[in-house]
Amino acid sequence: MLIESIDQYVAPLVVGLDAGGTRVRARCEDADGRLVGVGHGGPGNALSVERAALVNNLAQAVKAAVPARLRPSVTAVAGGFAGGGGPGSPVGRSLAEALGGLGIEAVTGLYGDVEVACASGPGAPADGLVLIAGTGATAARVAGRRTVRVADGDGWLLGDAGSGFWLGRQALRCALRAVDGREEWGPLVTLVLDRVVPGRADPALDWDGRHRLKQEVAAWAYTQRPVVLAELSPIVVAAARGGDDRASGLLDEAARQLADTVGALDPVPGEPLIVTGGLLGPEGPLVERLRSGVEPMGLSCAPVPDGAAGAVALARLLSGVSPQRP
Amino acid sequence: MLIESIDQYVAPLVVGLDAGGTRVRARCEDADGRLVGVGHGGPGNALSVERAALVNNLAQAVKAAVPARLRPSVTAVAGGFAGGGGPGSPVGRSLAEALGGLGIEAVTGLYGDVEVACASGPGAPADGLVLIAGTGATAARVAGRRTVRVADGDGWLLGDAGSGFWLGRQALRCALRAVDGREEWGPLVTLVLDRVVPGRADPALDWDGRHRLKQEVAAWAYTQRPVVLAELSPIVVAAARGGDDRASGLLDEAARQLADTVGALDPVPGEPLIVTGGLLGPEGPLVERLRSGVEPMGLSCAPVPDGAAGAVALARLLSGVSPQRP
Repeated sequence: MLIESIDQYVAPLVVGLDAGGTRVRARCEDADGRLVGVGHGGPGNALSVERAALVNNLAQAVKAAVPARLRPSVTAVAGGFAGGGGPGSPVGRSLAEALGGLGIEAVTGLYGDVEVACASGPGAPADGLVLIAGTGATAARVAGRRTVRVADGDGWLLGDAGSGFWLGRQALRCALRAVDGREEWGPLVTLVLDRVVPGRADPALDWDGRHRLKQEVAAWAYTQRPVVLAELSPIVVAAARGGDDRASGLLDEAARQLADTVGALDPVPGEPLIVTGGLLGPEGPLVERLRSGVEPMGLSCAPVPDGAAGAVALARLLSGVSPQRP
Repeated sequence: MLIESIDQYVAPLVVGLDAGGTRVRARCEDADGRLVGVGHGGPGNALSVERAALVNNLAQAVKAAVPARLRPSVTAVAGGFAGGGGPGSPVGRSLAEALGGLGIEAVTGLYGDVEVACASGPGAPADGLVLIAGTGATAARVAGRRTVRVADGDGWLLGDAGSGFWLGRQALRCALRAVDGREEWGPLVTLVLDRVVPGRADPALDWDGRHRLKQEVAAWAYTQRPVVLAELSPIVVAAARGGDDRASGLLDEAARQLADTVGALDPVPGEPLIVTGGLLGPEGPLVERLRSGVEPMGLSCAPVPDGAAGAVALARLLSGVSPQRP
């Protein structure tokens, strides 16, 4: 499969896009399933990114994934969009504009992030369960490549149970509770405080000093967008690996909540469960815990790194070929 | 104690202020402990209200509480300030400006909201525990009329366990969980949805309709200040009174968390526990539940409507008389 010249790729080429809240990922493959290129762009959540920026971020990713002279050979582009997508979605215009600017005239398909995640699973399934847990957390049932049911995905304020935001906020709450005497001051607490208010964590502080420390933590937290708390979740993972029981307990609880969200979708034993996102990709810190949680439902997890491969499979379908690599 | 003419009040007069996030309350009493008047002004939290507005809201409350011709007789004013207060607090300038504009030249005392709440308890205690639960939740130990230790009070994002915000958010979460099938659709769910998206709650909706309903709820919640969710807490109280087990469970859990916060202050059996705020004033919906929660610690609750009476007691002390009514 080693390619010595780009002329050896077999047309038509297809492009898959996974447009998430952190970045847009693009993946281009040829008709024989050979990887032509991958690319990244800025944030791609249509709900939180302005249209001009979305067009730019999509274009940037596609540009990097498809060499200029191969762009006329692209016949189909499928994109999975967090916070939007599906037929008739307004992101369609943004995608058309991004592709037009690169000279790509292709059939396009619009999907939700869970739909491309599902198609990223082994065998590019058209039906199955999907669980995405990164900054947020959403589970969905996909049937005929379209979302037919969603559980959670309610965002940081109202839901996202077991997500990175949830973990990060719980970690900061543990820290504040330890500082004012509501719980033990363990390694997790020190790690969190060292990140948030460097050099200020000191269990020897008197109550007055502890109260001022809490005020500094609050000043840090309340002057940022709340979702920034998700950035504390790797600290929980690190603390748990280091043997902190409180941190392990938070990871257990997060996995339990995520399994509970999947359970709401009336799972059928043996059906596919594709999992992805920062907490549930391959090597994701919650994969093993989730495995134990969904086993009683007769489900096993298939972690995938992102939805780009599934978007490629959907683009293949659009161009009239099998969604799986030949 | 009935006064037929304002000339019958015995000088000196004292004024107590309770400046909270929702409003400023003022109370004026004479040297014999007779009520001269009460007044209200707009929000008085120095952290969230601009200085000019704070001056205006303080002046409005004092103006209404003290008839113009009695103002020269006011010798002491004590104020309890949510989110600030204590000696040297910047709210001192605002208070001086408000009083100056009304022609009141008096000794002033600055306190925190928990300090005036403590002094509002039976016998105007100088030492004791205080628990305030309204939109937020804070517990504190007061010694010698000053706060020496605080538990929680960490705000809607990081704490306020068992507060009105906590209850409101849990109620809305229950609703979303019921809508996407994660829990039972009981009376609380219908009440919450009727308030948030009137006329849209319908357990007969299919999954697609339910997903759109959830998006409407999210649109309502994410376009307001998060603390607005506290306005849903009376719905939980109403649903619990109507026999909804889920709502009762939330109230039980709120009271349990509040008792836990008090417990962090190393309570001494028999010491005063003054409770106040929308959830814990006299007739407050959580008072009885909290009573059960703190009984094992040897504590009994003394609910007070607000901190204005305590502020009057502190003003009495400033003017050199007993803090208690004669």
